[in-house]
Amino acid sequence: MQGQNQQQAYDRGITIFSPDGRLYQVEYAREAVKRGTASIGVRTADGVVLAVDKRIRSPLMERDSVEKIHKADDHIGIASAGHVADARQLIDFARRRAQVNELRYGEPIAVETLTKEVTDYIQQYTQVGGARPFGVALIIAGIANGEPKLYETDPSGTPYEWKALAVGADRSDIRDYLEAHYEEGMDLDAGVELALSALASVNDDSLEPEGIGLATISVDDQQFHEHDIDERKAYLEQFELLASGDEEIDEPEDDGEQ
Amino acid sequence: MQGQNQQQAYDRGITIFSPDGRLYQVEYAREAVKRGTASIGVRTADGVVLAVDKRIRSPLMERDSVEKIHKADDHIGIASAGHVADARQLIDFARRRAQVNELRYGEPIAVETLTKEVTDYIQQYTQVGGARPFGVALIIAGIANGEPKLYETDPSGTPYEWKALAVGADRSDIRDYLEAHYEEGMDLDAGVELALSALASVNDDSLEPEGIGLATISVDDQQFHEHDIDERKAYLEQFELLASGDEEIDEPEDDGEQ
Amino acid sequence: MQGQNQQQAYDRGITIFSPDGRLYQVEYAREAVKRGTASIGVRTADGVVLAVDKRIRSPLMERDSVEKIHKADDHIGIASAGHVADARQLIDFARRRAQVNELRYGEPIAVETLTKEVTDYIQQYTQVGGARPFGVALIIAGIANGEPKLYETDPSGTPYEWKALAVGADRSDIRDYLEAHYEEGMDLDAGVELALSALASVNDDSLEPEGIGLATISVDDQQFHEHDIDERKAYLEQFELLASGDEEIDEPEDDGEQ
Amino acid sequence: MQGQNQQQAYDRGITIFSPDGRLYQVEYAREAVKRGTASIGVRTADGVVLAVDKRIRSPLMERDSVEKIHKADDHIGIASAGHVADARQLIDFARRRAQVNELRYGEPIAVETLTKEVTDYIQQYTQVGGARPFGVALIIAGIANGEPKLYETDPSGTPYEWKALAVGADRSDIRDYLEAHYEEGMDLDAGVELALSALASVNDDSLEPEGIGLATISVDDQQFHEHDIDERKAYLEQFELLASGDEEIDEPEDDGEQ
Amino acid sequence: MQGQNQQQAYDRGITIFSPDGRLYQVEYAREAVKRGTASIGVRTADGVVLAVDKRIRSPLMERDSVEKIHKADDHIGIASAGHVADARQLIDFARRRAQVNELRYGEPIAVETLTKEVTDYIQQYTQVGGARPFGVALIIAGIANGEPKLYETDPSGTPYEWKALAVGADRSDIRDYLEAHYEEGMDLDAGVELALSALASVNDDSLEPEGIGLATISVDDQQFHEHDIDERKAYLEQFELLASGDEEIDEPEDDGEQ
Amino acid sequence: MQGQNQQQAYDRGITIFSPDGRLYQVEYAREAVKRGTASIGVRTADGVVLAVDKRIRSPLMERDSVEKIHKADDHIGIASAGHVADARQLIDFARRRAQVNELRYGEPIAVETLTKEVTDYIQQYTQVGGARPFGVALIIAGIANGEPKLYETDPSGTPYEWKALAVGADRSDIRDYLEAHYEEGMDLDAGVELALSALASVNDDSLEPEGIGLATISVDDQQFHEHDIDERKAYLEQFELLASGDEEIDEPEDDGEQ
Amino acid sequence: MQGQNQQQAYDRGITIFSPDGRLYQVEYAREAVKRGTASIGVRTADGVVLAVDKRIRSPLMERDSVEKIHKADDHIGIASAGHVADARQLIDFARRRAQVNELRYGEPIAVETLTKEVTDYIQQYTQVGGARPFGVALIIAGIANGEPKLYETDPSGTPYEWKALAVGADRSDIRDYLEAHYEEGMDLDAGVELALSALASVNDDSLEPEGIGLATISVDDQQFHEHDIDERKAYLEQFELLASGDEEIDEPEDDGEQ
Repeated sequence: MQGQNQQQAYDRGITIFSPDGRLYQVEYAREAVKRGTASIGVRTADGVVLAVDKRIRSPLMERDSVEKIHKADDHIGIASAGHVADARQLIDFARRRAQVNELRYGEPIAVETLTKEVTDYIQQYTQVGGARPFGVALIIAGIANGEPKLYETDPSGTPYEWKALAVGADRSDIRDYLEAHYEEGMDLDAGVELALSALASVNDDSLEPEGIGLATISVDDQQFHEHDIDERKAYLEQFELLASGDEEIDEPEDDGEQ
Repeated sequence: MQGQNQQQAYDRGITIFSPDGRLYQVEYAREAVKRGTASIGVRTADGVVLAVDKRIRSPLMERDSVEKIHKADDHIGIASAGHVADARQLIDFARRRAQVNELRYGEPIAVETLTKEVTDYIQQYTQVGGARPFGVALIIAGIANGEPKLYETDPSGTPYEWKALAVGADRSDIRDYLEAHYEEGMDLDAGVELALSALASVNDDSLEPEGIGLATISVDDQQFHEHDIDERKAYLEQFELLASGDEEIDEPEDDGEQ
Repeated sequence: MQGQNQQQAYDRGITIFSPDGRLYQVEYAREAVKRGTASIGVRTADGVVLAVDKRIRSPLMERDSVEKIHKADDHIGIASAGHVADARQLIDFARRRAQVNELRYGEPIAVETLTKEVTDYIQQYTQVGGARPFGVALIIAGIANGEPKLYETDPSGTPYEWKALAVGADRSDIRDYLEAHYEEGMDLDAGVELALSALASVNDDSLEPEGIGLATISVDDQQFHEHDIDERKAYLEQFELLASGDEEIDEPEDDGEQ
Repeated sequence: MQGQNQQQAYDRGITIFSPDGRLYQVEYAREAVKRGTASIGVRTADGVVLAVDKRIRSPLMERDSVEKIHKADDHIGIASAGHVADARQLIDFARRRAQVNELRYGEPIAVETLTKEVTDYIQQYTQVGGARPFGVALIIAGIANGEPKLYETDPSGTPYEWKALAVGADRSDIRDYLEAHYEEGMDLDAGVELALSALASVNDDSLEPEGIGLATISVDDQQFHEHDIDERKAYLEQFELLASGDEEIDEPEDDGEQ
Repeated sequence: MQGQNQQQAYDRGITIFSPDGRLYQVEYAREAVKRGTASIGVRTADGVVLAVDKRIRSPLMERDSVEKIHKADDHIGIASAGHVADARQLIDFARRRAQVNELRYGEPIAVETLTKEVTDYIQQYTQVGGARPFGVALIIAGIANGEPKLYETDPSGTPYEWKALAVGADRSDIRDYLEAHYEEGMDLDAGVELALSALASVNDDSLEPEGIGLATISVDDQQFHEHDIDERKAYLEQFELLASGDEEIDEPEDDGEQ
Repeated sequence: MQGQNQQQAYDRGITIFSPDGRLYQVEYAREAVKRGTASIGVRTADGVVLAVDKRIRSPLMERDSVEKIHKADDHIGIASAGHVADARQLIDFARRRAQVNELRYGEPIAVETLTKEVTDYIQQYTQVGGARPFGVALIIAGIANGEPKLYETDPSGTPYEWKALAVGADRSDIRDYLEAHYEEGMDLDAGVELALSALASVNDDSLEPEGIGLATISVDDQQFHEHDIDERKAYLEQFELLASGDEEIDEPEDDGEQ
Repeated sequence: MQGQNQQQAYDRGITIFSPDGRLYQVEYAREAVKRGTASIGVRTADGVVLAVDKRIRSPLMERDSVEKIHKADDHIGIASAGHVADARQLIDFARRRAQVNELRYGEPIAVETLTKEVTDYIQQYTQVGGARPFGVALIIAGIANGEPKLYETDPSGTPYEWKALAVGADRSDIRDYLEAHYEEGMDLDAGVELALSALASVNDDSLEPEGIGLATISVDDQQFHEHDIDERKAYLEQFELLASGDEEIDEPEDDGEQ
C-alpha cells in the first residue's frame, strides 16, 4: 500500500492505474455507492425480491419520489445505491436497451444480456478519458427462461451473479445477515421476509412502510410488481418488523446519494 | 473528512471523485446556490406557491428586473436560487422541452417529466469533462393531472419531490419554519401565507412588496400567475408581514448570484 | 474567504467553482472591467443617456478613435468599460443579433431581448472550457415600446436593469453620486446633466469635451444620437463642468482597457 | 486545459516513457493482472487445456457467473486474469474478429492471427493518449491446422507463444511448477492433470470443483469444451486433488479483478 | 502588483485573467514587441509616413531582406515591430482581407475597416485556448476618402488611432520626441523629417540609409511608395541625419524579433 | 546535462524541447531500445545478413514465437530491438507500404524508400502531441538494383545507412567488435560469421541455435531467407560458436522488450 | 534573464510567452540546431555554394547516407542543420511546394517565395498548440531571375537573406571567418573556397572529402549540382585543405542531430 502523497498522485488522473494496479477513481466511485442507503436483492425458487432503504432529509420531502427501485422492463426490475443522478442515466440506458431488444428480436431481453450491456457501458467510463466513472451500483433482477436471476453491476463495470446481495451503506453487515439466513429453495414470501429482516437488522430491527421500497418479480407471471405502502405495511406486520410509528427523519447531508 | 491539502487535490479536477466518494465541484456548486437569496415552494391541496427574496445592490436597480420566478409553461413555474446566468440557461432549456413536448404529443408536459429532463441535463455537466456544473437550484412547481406538484433540482442533477421547501440562503432556518408550520390540506391562501411568513422569518418577520416575488398555480385554472406589487402588498398586509416602509438596500457583493 | 494559497488553486481552472461557490475567473474579469475608465447610463422619463470617460495615452492619440459608445441599432446604444478588444466582440455580436431580429421579425429588437441574448452568450464563456470570460461590462440603453430602458451586462452573464448606473473605474463613488442625485421623472437634459456631473465628480468636478463621450436616445425620435464635440462643450458650459482647458494626459499603462 | 495535464511523475502520463525506457502505466496494468486469480494454459500433443481459479466474495455469489474462461470461436478458447471489465472488452473484440474472418474468408481464424489482432488492439491503448491500457492478460488456446496452439497477450500488447503458462496471482510459483512437471508429448488428460495440480500447488494441494473452471480443445474434434462441475469433480478425484469439502470463502477485497 | 510566486500561477494559463484583471500572456506578448526595433508612423496633412529601424546580425545579412514595412494594398502600408514570423501572418491576413474587400465591394478597403478586421483576428488568439497571442504590433497607414489615416494594433487586439506613434524598442523615448515636435498641418516632407529625426533621436542622432526603411502614402496619388536607398540617403542628407559611414553591426541576440 | 529536478520538467511534455535542445521522450524511447536484446545487420558484397538474440522468460516459452526478424517484402527483411508491440506496428506499416508500392508502380519498393517512409512515420510521433514515440529500432536490409543495402531507423525518425551495425542491448560492445572485424568485400558467409561471432562476443563467445534468429538476402536471388534451426546449428558449428548445450534461461523481467 | 525556477515555468508550455517576451520552446529548438554539425552557404556573383560538415558515429556508417544537402528543385538546393528527422519534413514540404508552383504557374518557384512558404509553415508550429517547433535551420540557395539567392529559415519561422552564413555547430566562429573573408563580386570557385576554408577553420584547417558535402548552383545553367567525392577531393587539394588521411571518427552521442 502506498503512502498518502503517492496515492494523491494517481487518483487525480481519471483513467490510469496506480503502481499496485488499482484504478482509484473506480474505487472512489465505490465509496459514492457506500454513501447511498442500502439496497437488497434476494433470489428465491419462485421469484426475485428487491428491497431498499429510502432516506429523506425532511418530513416535507416525498419519500415516494425517492426512486431507488425502477422498472426496466415488464420482467426486470433494478434497485440502485449511490449517486442518484448517475443511477438515472444507467436506468435510462437499460430501458432503451430492453426496448431495442424487444424491437429487434421480438422477445424480452435476457436478464444477463441486459446486465452485461450495462456493465460494458459502465466500463467505457473507466477506460476512456474525459469523463468520470458512474458512482452507483445496480441490482438487476428478473426472470429469464422461467428462472429467477439476480445480478449486480459495480462502478468498474464488472457483472456479478448472486443468490442474495446488498449494495450501499452497511453492505457488509447486511451481507453477513444474508449469508446466515439465506436458504436454498425458499419461496418468494420467505425471500421478502429475508430481504426486509436483513434491512431491519441495520435499522434497530424495525422499519416503517414509508421508509422502504419493495418489489418482486415472480416466476409465475414474470411481471415486475412494486408493492404499495399498504402491502409494505402488511409485510412488516406479518414479519414483526413494523416500527413503533413516530416517524424519524435521518437528516443526512444533502449530497445527492441514495 | 479530508485535510485541507488533500481536499485541494480533488476539487481542481472537474468531474472526478474524492477518496470518500464525493464530487467536490458539485458540492461547491451547492455553495453557489447558498450565495443566492432564498426561494420557497409550498404545495397545498388546491395549488402551488412560489415565493422569493429579491436582493438589489442599489435603490437605482430595478427590482422587477431581478428574475427569480420564471414561467416555464402555462401550468408550470420555476423559482431559482444561485448563479443567475446559469439559472437562465436551465430555464431556457426547460421552456424548450415544454414546447417540444407540446408539439410532439399535443399535450402539456408533466411536471415530473420536465423536472427529470432538467436533472438529466444537469447531470451531464457533472460527469463529462470540459465544463463546470450548474451553480443553481430550481423549484419546479405546477399542476399535473389536476394534482399540485412541487420538485427541486440540485447541482448534482438529482430530482426531489417536496410538500414545501426552500433553496438558497437561510435554507436550513426556513426549512425548520416550514416543517413546524406546514399543514396537510391547507388551501392556496394558507400556502401563500406559509411561504411569505417563512421568508419573513429570516427577514426580521417583515417583508416589502418590492423585495419579494410571488407566484401561484391553482388546480382550478392551472395557470401560472405571477402576483404584481399590489397583490403582494395586499397579501403582506393581510398576513401582517408588511415592513415599515423605509426601503433598505442590502448592498451585497456584486457577484451574479440571486 | 480562503487563504492565499488555496485561492491560487481555483483561479487557474477556467470554469470551476471554489469551495465557497465562487467563480474566480469571472471575478477577475470584473477586475478587468474596473481597470477601464468609467461609463455611465441614466434613464429619464423621455430618454436614456450614455456618458463615458475616455482615457488617452498621449496627446498624439486620437481621442475620437477611443470607442466606448457604440450604436447597436437605430434605437439602441451601448457603452462599455473594460477590455476594449473583448468589448468589440460583444458589440459585433449585439449588432448581428439586432440585424437578425429585424430580418426575421420585421421589427426592431427589444432592448431587454438584446440584453439577454448578449448575457446568454457571455455565460457560455464562463461554463464551457477552452476560453476565458469576457473582461468587459456593457450598458445597453434604448427605447422599447416607447419606454426608455437601461440594462447592464457583467462578466458572469447576468442581466440587470437600472434607473442609473456606472461601470468601470470609480464605479462605487459614481454610484453614490447617482443615488444621491437621481430623481424620478426628470427630463433628458436633466439626465445628461446628472450623467456628466457624476462623471465630473470623480474628475475634480470638471471635464473636457475631448475627454468624454456622450450619447442620448430620446423617446420622441427613438434614434441613437452621439453628441459631437461642440454639443459636448455646450453641455459642459451649460452645466458649469467645463475644464480650464490645458489638456492633461493621463498616461496610464498601455494595457488595452478603456 | 494545458497545465492540468502536466504533473510530476512519469506514471501519471498515460503514454510516455520514463528515463529508463519503461512505460509505467503498462507495468501498473501488469499489477492489475496479478491482482486477479490465476489462469493456466497447457499445450499437449493432442489438445490444449485452460484451467482457472475462481474467487468469490461470498457463498451467496454464483461462482458460475465468474467468467474467466470464454469461448471465442468453435475452436478457440480464452482464459483471462486481471480486471474483469477490461477482459470482457477484449473477449468481445476477439469474438468479432473471429466472426469477421469466418465471413470474409470462409474459414476459421488461425489462433496466431487472432492473438495478434488482439495484441495490436491492446498496443493502441499504450501509445495513443486519452485512454489507459487494458489491465488484463489473456491465454488464447486453440487448434490451427490440426496443431494445438497456446498464446499469451499482456498489457503491453506483446504476443507470446507457450507450451504451458500461468497468468495472474502466484504466476511465478505456478510457472516453477509447470517447468518442473511439463513433459513433451503428454496427452490431453495428462495436460489436464498438470494444469489442475499446478493450480492446486498454490491452494494447499487441493481444489473444489465449484472453485475452478476447466476447458479443453482437442485436436480430434477441434471443439471448445467447457467442463461442467461433475466433470471437474471427476477429474479432481482422479488426480487426488479434491478438497475436503467445507467450502471456504476467500472474501477478497471487492475490486473487480479475477 | 502580485508577488513573484503568484504571478507565475497566472501566466502559465494561456487565456485566463489574473486576480487584478490582467491577461499576462498579452502583456508578455507586448514585451516581445519591445524586443523588436522601433517602427514609427506620422500622419501629416497630405499623407502618412512609415519609418523603421532595421537591425542586422552581421554585415553579411541583407538588410533589404529585413521586412519591417509591407504593402498591404495600393493605398495602405503596414510597419511592424516584434516577432517577425508573427508579423508575416498578420500581414498575409491583412492582404487577403484587402483583396476580399476589393472583390466583394469593388472598392479599396477603408484603413479603419482593415485595422479592425486585424484586431478582431488578434483578439481571438487572446480569448480562445490552444494558441498564444501574436507577439507583434502593427502600424497601419493609408488614405481613406482622401484623408490620411494612421492606426496601431497591439497584442490585445485593441485598435488605436494616432497622429504619430512609435512601437517597438525605445517606444517611450520616441513618443516623447514625437509629442515635442509634432505639428498639426505639416506637409509630407515635414512628416518624413519628423519620423527620421525621431528615429535618429535614439540612435546618436544619425542614421545610415541601409539601416532604415521608409515609406509614404500621399493624399495626391494614394499610392504606397517605399523609398529606395538613394531616396533614403537624400532625405538623411537633407535633414542632416546621415551617419558618418563606417557601418556598425548591432549583433543582437538571434531571436526572431525586428 | 541538467539536474534531476530540471530534467523532470522536460520529459513530462511529450513533444517539447529541453533547454539544451534535446527531446527527452525520444531519448527515453532509445532506452527502451536498449532494454531489448541485440539485433545485428551486416552488409557484404553479395548480400545482407540479419542476426538476433532471442531472450525467453522460461523454457516453456516458444523461442520461435519471439519475432525479432520479419519479412517485409520478398527482397527486404527487418530486424527489431526494443518494445515488441511497437515493433509490430512499424513492421505492419512497412509491409503495407511495400504492397502499395508494388500495386502502384508495379515494382518492388527500394530499400531506402521504404526506410524513409518508416522514419517519416516515426517522426510524426515525436512532434505532434497525443501519442508517445515508438520505443523500437529497426534494421532494414534488402537488395536494391542488385546492391545490398542496410539501414537503421531510430526513435527520432532518423534514417542511417550502415555497412554493419547493432541495435539493442550491448550495442556499443558489438559495434566495437564489428568495427574491428568488418572487412570490405567479404562474401555472404563471412557476413554470417561476422554477425554471429559479434553476437557471441557478448554471450561468452557461444550461442545456441534456439536462442538466435538468422536471415540473409543474397544479391543472386534477392529473396529473404530465414534460416531454420538446423541451418543455424550448422553455421554455429562451422564457426565454432555452438554452446555446450545445457539450455540456459535468462529469465529477465517480464516487460515486453526484445 | 530569469532565474532557474521561473524559467521552468515557461518552457513547459509549448506556445506561450515568458515575462520578457521570449518563446522558450523556439529558443530551445535553436539549441537543437546548434547540436547539429555546421552547414554553410555562400552567395557569389555567378552562383551559390552549399557546404556541410557530416558527422558519423562509426566508420561503419555510410557518410553518404547522411543527408545534409538536399535538392529541392532543379534550381534550388537546401542545406540543413539540427534535428535530421525534422529537416526531412521541411524538405518534403519544400519539394511539394516547388512542384505545386510548377504545376500551377508553369514556371519554377522563386527562391524567396519558397523560403517564405517554408517559414510560414514553421511559424504555425510555434503558435498553435499540440506540437513542438521544428528543431532545424535550413539554408535555401538557388537562382531567381538570373540572380543568385541565399536564405535562412530558423525555428521561429523568420526568413533571412544572406551573402554568406553558417548554421549549426560553431556558427559564431564560422560567421566571423566568413565576415573576415567574404568579398563582393567573387566568382563561384572563390565561393567554394570560402565555404570550404570556413568549414575547415573549425576543423583544424583541414577536411576529408568523405566528411563533407558540397553543392553549387551557377547562374549559367541554373542546375543544382552536388559534387561527388572526387570533385570534393580535387577542391580540397586545390585549396590546400585536404586532411592527412587517417580517418577520424567523431563518435558523438547518438541523438539524431546533424
